[in-house]
Amino acid sequence: MGANLPVNAQRLWADVMALAEITDPGEPYTRRAFTARFLEGRAFLARRFAEAGLLARIDPAGNLIGRRPGQTPGKGVILIGSHSDTVPGGGRFDGVAGVAAALEIARALSEQGLTLDHDLEVIDCLAEEANVYGVSCVGSRGLTGGLTPEMLAYSEPGGETVGQALARMGGDPQAIGEARRTDIAAFVELHIEQGRVLESERLDIGVVRSIVGILRVELLIEGRADHAGTTPMTLRADALCGAAAAILATRGKAEALAAAGEGYFAATIGVIEIAPNAANVVPASARLVIDARAERSETMERFSAWAEAELPRLVADAGTRLARMTILSDSRHAAADPGLCAIIAQAADSLGLSWREMASGAGHDAAMLSCIAPMAMIFTPCRDGRSHCAEEWTEPGQLAAGAAVMLETVLRIDRRSDE
Amino acid sequence: MGANLPVNAQRLWADVMALAEITDPGEPYTRRAFTARFLEGRAFLARRFAEAGLLARIDPAGNLIGRRPGQTPGKGVILIGSHSDTVPGGGRFDGVAGVAAALEIARALSEQGLTLDHDLEVIDCLAEEANVYGVSCVGSRGLTGGLTPEMLAYSEPGGETVGQALARMGGDPQAIGEARRTDIAAFVELHIEQGRVLESERLDIGVVRSIVGILRVELLIEGRADHAGTTPMTLRADALCGAAAAILATRGKAEALAAAGEGYFAATIGVIEIAPNAANVVPASARLVIDARAERSETMERFSAWAEAELPRLVADAGTRLARMTILSDSRHAAADPGLCAIIAQAADSLGLSWREMASGAGHDAAMLSCIAPMAMIFTPCRDGRSHCAEEWTEPGQLAAGAAVMLETVLRIDRRSDE
Repeated sequence: MGANLPVNAQRLWADVMALAEITDPGEPYTRRAFTARFLEGRAFLARRFAEAGLLARIDPAGNLIGRRPGQTPGKGVILIGSHSDTVPGGGRFDGVAGVAAALEIARALSEQGLTLDHDLEVIDCLAEEANVYGVSCVGSRGLTGGLTPEMLAYSEPGGETVGQALARMGGDPQAIGEARRTDIAAFVELHIEQGRVLESERLDIGVVRSIVGILRVELLIEGRADHAGTTPMTLRADALCGAAAAILATRGKAEALAAAGEGYFAATIGVIEIAPNAANVVPASARLVIDARAERSETMERFSAWAEAELPRLVADAGTRLARMTILSDSRHAAADPGLCAIIAQAADSLGLSWREMASGAGHDAAMLSCIAPMAMIFTPCRDGRSHCAEEWTEPGQLAAGAAVMLETVLRIDRRSDE
Repeated sequence: MGANLPVNAQRLWADVMALAEITDPGEPYTRRAFTARFLEGRAFLARRFAEAGLLARIDPAGNLIGRRPGQTPGKGVILIGSHSDTVPGGGRFDGVAGVAAALEIARALSEQGLTLDHDLEVIDCLAEEANVYGVSCVGSRGLTGGLTPEMLAYSEPGGETVGQALARMGGDPQAIGEARRTDIAAFVELHIEQGRVLESERLDIGVVRSIVGILRVELLIEGRADHAGTTPMTLRADALCGAAAAILATRGKAEALAAAGEGYFAATIGVIEIAPNAANVVPASARLVIDARAERSETMERFSAWAEAELPRLVADAGTRLARMTILSDSRHAAADPGLCAIIAQAADSLGLSWREMASGAGHDAAMLSCIAPMAMIFTPCRDGRSHCAEEWTEPGQLAAGAAVMLETVLRIDRRSDE
């Protein structure tokens, strides 16, 4: 596949593998935001940006940006890229694939002697992953003007604030407002899918039509601690039975909403803690965390309304009590620009690559960017859906196919603006 | 109630409260077996035994035994008592109530100028509660000859063996075989119910017809860790959903077996641990522990057969796999002697006290003794079923009523033997 593509698959792959080598040795592949290791990765990228003829800078929000000026002033910027930080023990592709693909596109354009009408900027957004400072997507928030003074004052356990850490990365917390962009004509981010949909359907490309909203709700179910031997079944208030009823009902509701065909929906109970958690004591309490993800806010609202109405009843039917139901976080979904999605699909078709529209179940810098610019994402398949782990994998050809679609997409965006 | 009883309710209560004062100050009411605090309690009891005219000794299994010789040699021993060790932070009555009641009976007999035909022995069995050495019911096992060399070699984390600890308590591990008794005509143990049956039915006395067998089974359910956002509902193997199905089915089966009227039955899942237990990851595995208690071995066998046949299927229906089902422990039920149960019931009737037959859902020294002698237990109510905690409580009048039934029972056993 790679041989016929308008990008250099080997060169792209070599960049991803070179970044993978820049890792905390004990826990590959780890390059946490705000660390010395992260700056090592950044130094590598800055060299590569320079070699590609990009004019590199760090903006006040700590983003590394490489600029390739266009022919026609005032047409706005086509911004492409992702992030180079990783989760602890995380994979080689999450984020990096999108940064390396964007860099490769700049190189391919130069090799082909093409200059766009638009300015092209390649971006490595700062600190996309959750981190010890308590704020993710630091760089992309900065691009939207959303990095508030409160967020800059968040601190890690050692006491360093986000603002101080940002300054260490070459950002400028005092001038953070200047990071805000109003000149972005389009933002396109390539990313591995982090799921198994493309792999299971043997498709080359995912055209992301939206990034889900994420609702996290904590349930506290109260029963009564009783001796497991001496308390007859009829006299029990077993919090784990109340929890089990909530778990199965939530699963059933999520399956129904996902099957309803009204956009992507998933809900997971990934956390359970019971007390006292002893074999000879009837569980007194159970704590659950629901993670619900919806492509459409209507679907999320239906799920929330169901949970509020039904879960207390179901838990009570089990002889226990839903003592608390707390929203831990609630981020809105982000819609991709339909025009950009259509261009990505046409680009894939033009290259003979198979594709489908899909929702992103995970959050991305692109969700932030959707506040200030038309946004779209290109997903590449990943093996067995594994992500945020050392086994995270996408084939060189799959990655090159994604980059080729991205290059073609950039060219079509640039031309579309001419019309 | 207490004023008309043939025991001194105030004196009995004072002994229980005096033992409660002998506690680790930071964590009342705690007097763990094999500790200096426990020996303090033992010293108090030994003084009281002496004041009651009992001939006190420590047998090779570390039991404190106070003897009141009978008139007719060779009739055997009526053994009464319980244990004076506690769980950490445990209550004032579990065990102690039975030792103090037995002591009070010896005193009441003396005050009333009665000498039995049988020898009467008041016993404080060593180390009934689970402990860091890994063997419970140390003293009562010794009485049955069941304290094996392997058990004596068990050691606590610091390295001291059960045998060494036993020697510190005044026992003699070298002569452990001599602790074995063949002369017990009857063993009667008074104990708080540790449940809420008597309280909820407003009854004075529980006549324990059997002590349940206890089966502990560990279930390991395997699913697959997937991203909670990017994995569609149809592509999941959620171990927590498999666990929830097992929890509800076990509850349902236990309710059915308990309601079938074929003896007491209860089953509890008191332990659940899932991995990775993170909000954004579909649970990969779940560990559950089932605690099943049955008065009749047939009922336990029906439950086991159901679990082996149905749980793998139910867990598989949830898209997961029951990878392991391990028996952690399996102790047989112990039947009380029907003749002794009838005597206890008659004794309660003769005192105008209400009673019911019931199973003990918890283990007791009496279960051990059932191997070598006719055994029975007398339960007294306890507040709100609370036990193994500082709130454990029985009213002075309830305890005295139990002791009075025990005295009357001892007198009737003694007379019955004359017939």
